Amino acid sequence: MQTLHVDLGHSRYPIDIGPGLLGDAGLLDARIPGRDLLIVSNVTVAPLYLERLRRSLPGRRVGECILPDGESHKTLATAGTIFDALVAQRQNRDATLVALGGGVVGDLGGFAAACYQRGIACVQVPTTLLAQVDSSVGGKTGVNHPGGKNLIGAFHQPAAVIADTDTLTTLPDRELRAGLAEIVKYGCICDAGLFDWLEINLPRLLARDPAALTHAIAASCRLKASVVARDERESNVRAILNFGHTFGHAIEAATAYTSYLHGEAVAIGMLIAADLSARLGLIDREAAARLRALLERAGLPVAAPAIGADRARTLMQMDKKVRAGALRLVLLDALGNAVVTADYDESALTATLTEYFA
Amino acid sequence: MQTLHVDLGHSRYPIDIGPGLLGDAGLLDARIPGRDLLIVSNVTVAPLYLERLRRSLPGRRVGECILPDGESHKTLATAGTIFDALVAQRQNRDATLVALGGGVVGDLGGFAAACYQRGIACVQVPTTLLAQVDSSVGGKTGVNHPGGKNLIGAFHQPAAVIADTDTLTTLPDRELRAGLAEIVKYGCICDAGLFDWLEINLPRLLARDPAALTHAIAASCRLKASVVARDERESNVRAILNFGHTFGHAIEAATAYTSYLHGEAVAIGMLIAADLSARLGLIDREAAARLRALLERAGLPVAAPAIGADRARTLMQMDKKVRAGALRLVLLDALGNAVVTADYDESALTATLTEYFA
Repeated sequence: MQTLHVDLGHSRYPIDIGPGLLGDAGLLDARIPGRDLLIVSNVTVAPLYLERLRRSLPGRRVGECILPDGESHKTLATAGTIFDALVAQRQNRDATLVALGGGVVGDLGGFAAACYQRGIACVQVPTTLLAQVDSSVGGKTGVNHPGGKNLIGAFHQPAAVIADTDTLTTLPDRELRAGLAEIVKYGCICDAGLFDWLEINLPRLLARDPAALTHAIAASCRLKASVVARDERESNVRAILNFGHTFGHAIEAATAYTSYLHGEAVAIGMLIAADLSARLGLIDREAAARLRALLERAGLPVAAPAIGADRARTLMQMDKKVRAGALRLVLLDALGNAVVTADYDESALTATLTEYFA
Repeated sequence: MQTLHVDLGHSRYPIDIGPGLLGDAGLLDARIPGRDLLIVSNVTVAPLYLERLRRSLPGRRVGECILPDGESHKTLATAGTIFDALVAQRQNRDATLVALGGGVVGDLGGFAAACYQRGIACVQVPTTLLAQVDSSVGGKTGVNHPGGKNLIGAFHQPAAVIADTDTLTTLPDRELRAGLAEIVKYGCICDAGLFDWLEINLPRLLARDPAALTHAIAASCRLKASVVARDERESNVRAILNFGHTFGHAIEAATAYTSYLHGEAVAIGMLIAADLSARLGLIDREAAARLRALLERAGLPVAAPAIGADRARTLMQMDKKVRAGALRLVLLDALGNAVVTADYDESALTATLTEYFA
């Protein structure tokens, strides 16, 4: 097991990564505060892991709230069902919400915990690669709105993150690949060495080699924790974590969150951002080609849906990174270094959008 | 005009109190950040004051969202309509939400601002006495759940509070009296001098004497700001602001938020809390009688609905002040000093609940 720490000054929490954690009653006892717990999970994950988790929580009053599966359910209405469960179980301010599942469960559970009684503790127990390397860490929670992704939410840091790598054994291939997209992202934005490592070790990750997965997850969490520690509320540097996301969110919104997994949309979004970076002369075409090759080898989609450049731009305009009407983009000036800028040639953006979305 | 400041370290904001503020374009320009605004109001207040406010905001892009009136609309669904308006108007993270109305508009608007894009600026423009002396200050926002009041919410400090006392001229008598209940509360919990002043000056307040109102509002805001500065997240001392509220919330929930104004329920709740304080020997019966006399002179209800002691206790158990299963109560040990305790004689509580709710 590896244990990292996210240190934000006002809050500090551990991230445990390794096999067998759901069965480790001692660890869970130390990591999960409170006598009263509500486990939030979904219809896919609960049958696989809920009992294992419950058995490791002796002496707690454990309620549960099982949600439907899928990004299309990441809505205010679904958050409402979690509130209903918390109220029905008479959970109080000292209760802890435990989010057992992927990114949707984590985002919904975290948001419900942020709002219930103006904030109760939340422990993230991510069971997908994407959630383990990204969404469970950093305190961003929220739900989608038909007008855009994660438009409603809160910053609410978890009390702990417990990433049991055993849960990845039941992860569908497609979701594994979607999680790899976020790991590739960390390589692109801030760790050229990780990118190189991924080019060499991708077959091990696809084969679910436990040591390779643990290495990649820990590296990703370490990078994310470092960025979040510098800028919890995304005033500046944290925005680099959204590399590929502005385009990816437009793709997800245009397809009603049903056609692409988040990581798949991000994969395409990263390619679009890299294409624009190349058009602007920030990186060379060879760097963009390396990224495309890696994503293709990972079995991720590399073509955007034909929604039209105008529609894509309209959806992008709802991005949370818009400031004073100007759309800030996360671009690369090297494979391993991201820049955030609102100062780019609009015609290059138009050319990129036309190439990908027309 | 009086200007106070709430200083929380991480955030500092002004409270302006006085006549004519809605027409003071210079003040509003200084106090309301952002180019893009969404004014949230309701069907009662908007026809009276929205245009006055709009005319004082030259050069801004001003959208609006007009809600139905009343506590029964303080729901997650109504918050959803504010999110819809923000999205429909393509408001971004640098937009400011301006809440123009009473406590319900302020709580809803503040909550929507807290959650939209994980937090945009909110300026509170309270138009009721209750909102001016209480709910607009301190950053508590939220909505009700059928299971209890304000069970879903966020701490989100406003960027500014602008209390135009002219708006009180159109306030129905019943709402004026409900606002007085919260002013009486400040006297009870932390300012014996204010309580004495109220006993003398109540007729001036009921007659809407502008100077008396401004004095009472400023005194209340100063006391609240001082308490909030010491304990923003209600870890300890802030709980005294809930004097009368645990009982009052039970009354409101039992009557579906339709029979009593919040201040009316708090008035009854304060009497119940004072009765219990007297039973426990913390204050003498004469102090409780002084409180009753003042509330009666203010035209506030002093009898609780006959919902039964058991139902009252069940509803109280959903109070956010419950910790580890124990209900903490805000009691008085003097007229002018509140104490928060979970250490009280249960039989005294039962006797009080039976007397008031049976």
